[in-house]
Amino acid sequence: MQDFQQVINSIHKQLKDEINRGLVANYIPELSHIDVNNFGIHLKLISGENFSVGDSQVPFSIQSISKVLSLSLAFQLQGNALWKRMDVEPSGDPFNQLSLLELENGIPRNPFINSGAIVIADILVSQLKNPKEEFLHFVRDLANDQTITYNPAVAASEKATGYTNYAAAYLLKSYQNLENEVDKVLDFYFYMCSLEMNCEQLTNAFYIFANHGVCQQNKTWLTTSQIKRINAIMLTCGFYDEAGEFAFEVGLPGKSGVGGGIVALLPNNFVISTWSPGLNPRGNSKIGMQALEAFTTKTKLSIF
Amino acid sequence: MQDFQQVINSIHKQLKDEINRGLVANYIPELSHIDVNNFGIHLKLISGENFSVGDSQVPFSIQSISKVLSLSLAFQLQGNALWKRMDVEPSGDPFNQLSLLELENGIPRNPFINSGAIVIADILVSQLKNPKEEFLHFVRDLANDQTITYNPAVAASEKATGYTNYAAAYLLKSYQNLENEVDKVLDFYFYMCSLEMNCEQLTNAFYIFANHGVCQQNKTWLTTSQIKRINAIMLTCGFYDEAGEFAFEVGLPGKSGVGGGIVALLPNNFVISTWSPGLNPRGNSKIGMQALEAFTTKTKLSIF
Amino acid sequence: MQDFQQVINSIHKQLKDEINRGLVANYIPELSHIDVNNFGIHLKLISGENFSVGDSQVPFSIQSISKVLSLSLAFQLQGNALWKRMDVEPSGDPFNQLSLLELENGIPRNPFINSGAIVIADILVSQLKNPKEEFLHFVRDLANDQTITYNPAVAASEKATGYTNYAAAYLLKSYQNLENEVDKVLDFYFYMCSLEMNCEQLTNAFYIFANHGVCQQNKTWLTTSQIKRINAIMLTCGFYDEAGEFAFEVGLPGKSGVGGGIVALLPNNFVISTWSPGLNPRGNSKIGMQALEAFTTKTKLSIF
Amino acid sequence: MQDFQQVINSIHKQLKDEINRGLVANYIPELSHIDVNNFGIHLKLISGENFSVGDSQVPFSIQSISKVLSLSLAFQLQGNALWKRMDVEPSGDPFNQLSLLELENGIPRNPFINSGAIVIADILVSQLKNPKEEFLHFVRDLANDQTITYNPAVAASEKATGYTNYAAAYLLKSYQNLENEVDKVLDFYFYMCSLEMNCEQLTNAFYIFANHGVCQQNKTWLTTSQIKRINAIMLTCGFYDEAGEFAFEVGLPGKSGVGGGIVALLPNNFVISTWSPGLNPRGNSKIGMQALEAFTTKTKLSIF
Repeated sequence: MQDFQQVINSIHKQLKDEINRGLVANYIPELSHIDVNNFGIHLKLISGENFSVGDSQVPFSIQSISKVLSLSLAFQLQGNALWKRMDVEPSGDPFNQLSLLELENGIPRNPFINSGAIVIADILVSQLKNPKEEFLHFVRDLANDQTITYNPAVAASEKATGYTNYAAAYLLKSYQNLENEVDKVLDFYFYMCSLEMNCEQLTNAFYIFANHGVCQQNKTWLTTSQIKRINAIMLTCGFYDEAGEFAFEVGLPGKSGVGGGIVALLPNNFVISTWSPGLNPRGNSKIGMQALEAFTTKTKLSIF
Repeated sequence: MQDFQQVINSIHKQLKDEINRGLVANYIPELSHIDVNNFGIHLKLISGENFSVGDSQVPFSIQSISKVLSLSLAFQLQGNALWKRMDVEPSGDPFNQLSLLELENGIPRNPFINSGAIVIADILVSQLKNPKEEFLHFVRDLANDQTITYNPAVAASEKATGYTNYAAAYLLKSYQNLENEVDKVLDFYFYMCSLEMNCEQLTNAFYIFANHGVCQQNKTWLTTSQIKRINAIMLTCGFYDEAGEFAFEVGLPGKSGVGGGIVALLPNNFVISTWSPGLNPRGNSKIGMQALEAFTTKTKLSIF
Repeated sequence: MQDFQQVINSIHKQLKDEINRGLVANYIPELSHIDVNNFGIHLKLISGENFSVGDSQVPFSIQSISKVLSLSLAFQLQGNALWKRMDVEPSGDPFNQLSLLELENGIPRNPFINSGAIVIADILVSQLKNPKEEFLHFVRDLANDQTITYNPAVAASEKATGYTNYAAAYLLKSYQNLENEVDKVLDFYFYMCSLEMNCEQLTNAFYIFANHGVCQQNKTWLTTSQIKRINAIMLTCGFYDEAGEFAFEVGLPGKSGVGGGIVALLPNNFVISTWSPGLNPRGNSKIGMQALEAFTTKTKLSIF
Repeated sequence: MQDFQQVINSIHKQLKDEINRGLVANYIPELSHIDVNNFGIHLKLISGENFSVGDSQVPFSIQSISKVLSLSLAFQLQGNALWKRMDVEPSGDPFNQLSLLELENGIPRNPFINSGAIVIADILVSQLKNPKEEFLHFVRDLANDQTITYNPAVAASEKATGYTNYAAAYLLKSYQNLENEVDKVLDFYFYMCSLEMNCEQLTNAFYIFANHGVCQQNKTWLTTSQIKRINAIMLTCGFYDEAGEFAFEVGLPGKSGVGGGIVALLPNNFVISTWSPGLNPRGNSKIGMQALEAFTTKTKLSIF
């Protein structure tokens, strides 16, 4: 068996002093203040063994990574009825999301582009009595950690500046692909994105996707087929306009967020999370991508 | 001199019993209840002489025709600074307005597509202390008629269902081409569209565009150059996706609204308004278009 | 009556030494060698009176201006059947012509964008035995001048570099909106664009559009309705992405070409041609636009 | 170890009498005559063991599957210089390929959409002395089978009707992303698509992608990194607008063609080819997709 602690240590050592770390997202003050030098990795094997290095215990804003968790809850509640309201195909262009939505009559390309994640939020608002509480409860259960919380200041900032999301939501509404009021749906959507977790918690929460739908506490949340579907979407749509690049460089299903987090996994094998807040021009963590590329290269554990 | 009363009488007679009158706009209840058989014409010569026939005294919702009036007020207040925030070219496609706005980085194609008219509304909200009162005052002055009013029920209905306008406004906001809050701007925008006028009032209000910027009461509101600009925009952009067709059929600068009104004019010659609430598939009054085509054919008074 | 010779003399004097004359089209050598200082004007009144100044007798490549002439011949041959294969509405964007064609299933927006003019060429290839000869004959007859010729070197150059036109033609073919072979159609299309005329010849050829379809030799080529249609298209689509601007600045139906020529007209009044080879960023003759704007301002002869 | 022969036998038995087999491609006569009931499977393990069932020895037109082979040869010849001329990201929409190409300034989204494959053909035309011979030689070597041939009748048919490909090629040419003459490039492109192979030959030719770049005859054609890149592109872009669906249903890198063939592989494990000429609405073999889904479900051999 490989010495995983040694592998992540060496990756951490190699990348922690890299000068060119990308740019910290600056569209809201709460994210822009983060020190670009933060860098943590947490690895969990399917067996349950854990390996950590660096700032793996520092919580960060998971942002778009929350879209995998909200999709999971909606999928559990609605099953395949979900796919009447969105597709599962890669979107191609991030720069003209509204054009795409208009051309395709209000059906988002997949649940990870913003318009798709807003439809997921709408489903949860319809299905849950107290969406914020119940979603948080779900994430805490997945991660087996009751300390995970939202950051209301981050949510409020995004709400105050998220004009494109409002535009997408109203466009969805015009195509009757939003059941609830735009304000209600986006309020919840921004809350979900504001979830704060550290690398270890994120890894624990995603254990279920490597383990056929069964979480660490042995509870089965999703069917094997549902897990396969979510992993397939992570693989083809998880990295904005860089999905093809990530599939090549890393070769794992995964999801990134503009907070600088990435989580990736090999079914039946492991889950790994990285956090480094500097982003490359396509909006993915620069050092995180390099760390994951190094990890799959060194361990030969990828889908290829 | 031609016998204009006889001309409009014969047009009215010929078209009033036409079976195929198009469809009344049905997206809000207030508009859908209008009797499709309403049909009025009012003509005013540059000399001041008036000719009326049919339902020319029945008020109707002027809808997009208000965009010419709001543009005029904003143009008067801002001059050519206006054109930093929008262009003056025809838009081509009505079906993908948001795509176009996204492709052109938040600069609307012209002031008569919805996104352009929303920017105009934003300018008026910034420039005026009491936008609704002052705009109404401006229109009443132009028409020399203090009885003209908004219809708050129509404004409220449009507000409740105008999701595409909200999407456009938030997209403009994301491109920093909207200074005020979306809700405030759209509230005003929907009010302007809800203006109710009859054919005579509309004709009187547009007299200024045939008379080099001087209204009936001899007040100069706009420069000759500004009037020429507005007439040029009416000519190339006044009829949604049917501008080319209207230029051919009628050959006059003009503007239509989904309430079934059309106003058109020949500079130095006349202004004419028609109202027939049934629309053709491209959203312009079916009988109104035919009436204006007949008018310019019979009188040989067009730009061609 | 105005002293038209004095008017055009003063415009010529005012603009002939203007430093900033725009850029001569350089995509083919034959056009790029033209001296940017060429500048001519020719005016013909509906009465037949002529006024000339500057380089009005120097032939230049009429390029896209030929699209009005080819449309006229096709319209005469096919009547309104023509409009099954193209629309009459402004196109909005010049930069994504193929996108527009794809979105609209192979139906060009109007006969003056390249795809539309290629369909017109296809119609002429189908209808005429010897398209090149017969089209030249038609133009010579309109202009009453048998010395007008094609420039085969220009046609050959355009053919060798006209990849976008080939792309458009094949796309039309894929939508079954081209009857003949692409090579045959484009060969003819490039020939038409290579026509060389001077300002006087161009003015004479367009006399018919100001005179209800009757040319100088008193022959009726087109119906009044057909002429009105063509003038309407010139007004709304004649100046690439600057149609709205031209309608405002000049206020006349007209057509420009990248050779630096512009021809414009006021029905029942006059035809005027200008030539100055420097282009503004939107592809229209810079000095020519200014000359025409000055002409309509000084003479107050425009549609406004 | 699993009894693979039994697995593919049972899949074949289950699907061979399925009534709803999709529609055979009918855009050229040569493809439309194929009997829809053809159905073959060939499986090769990394160890070299082979398993066959049904019409696995009947040659069919591999069509777009050739794009993987041409990419491989160009990649071998040019290395990463290739990626200056195209991207590696999923394309999203198949219906507006030219729009996408225009929006992205002539850089194809990936080497498997037609415009990308045409650029690959252009590279091979530039790099090879006798492109057709050398490409065939390369494929025969990969498959270790000197009987593989082109079908000139299929190539000629596609050439005669491939207008969209001509449009794409000329558009590429206008963006200077095509070095050679369009006719020369497309002639070669259509030849490559006309390659005929049976399931066994196809499986053999793709063995290299499961075996780190080393073919059956132990020759190393591509580096491990190049193989990983090609597999990543197959995974994210191999199934037209159904890449996400295939990743979910089957969970393997693969490529389909409109001739009804599909080849898929699990690195280090196996290669499998299926052929059933009926297509689903998105252009992939209907029964082939079902067979591969059944195979990965039964054997649990997929990336998930």
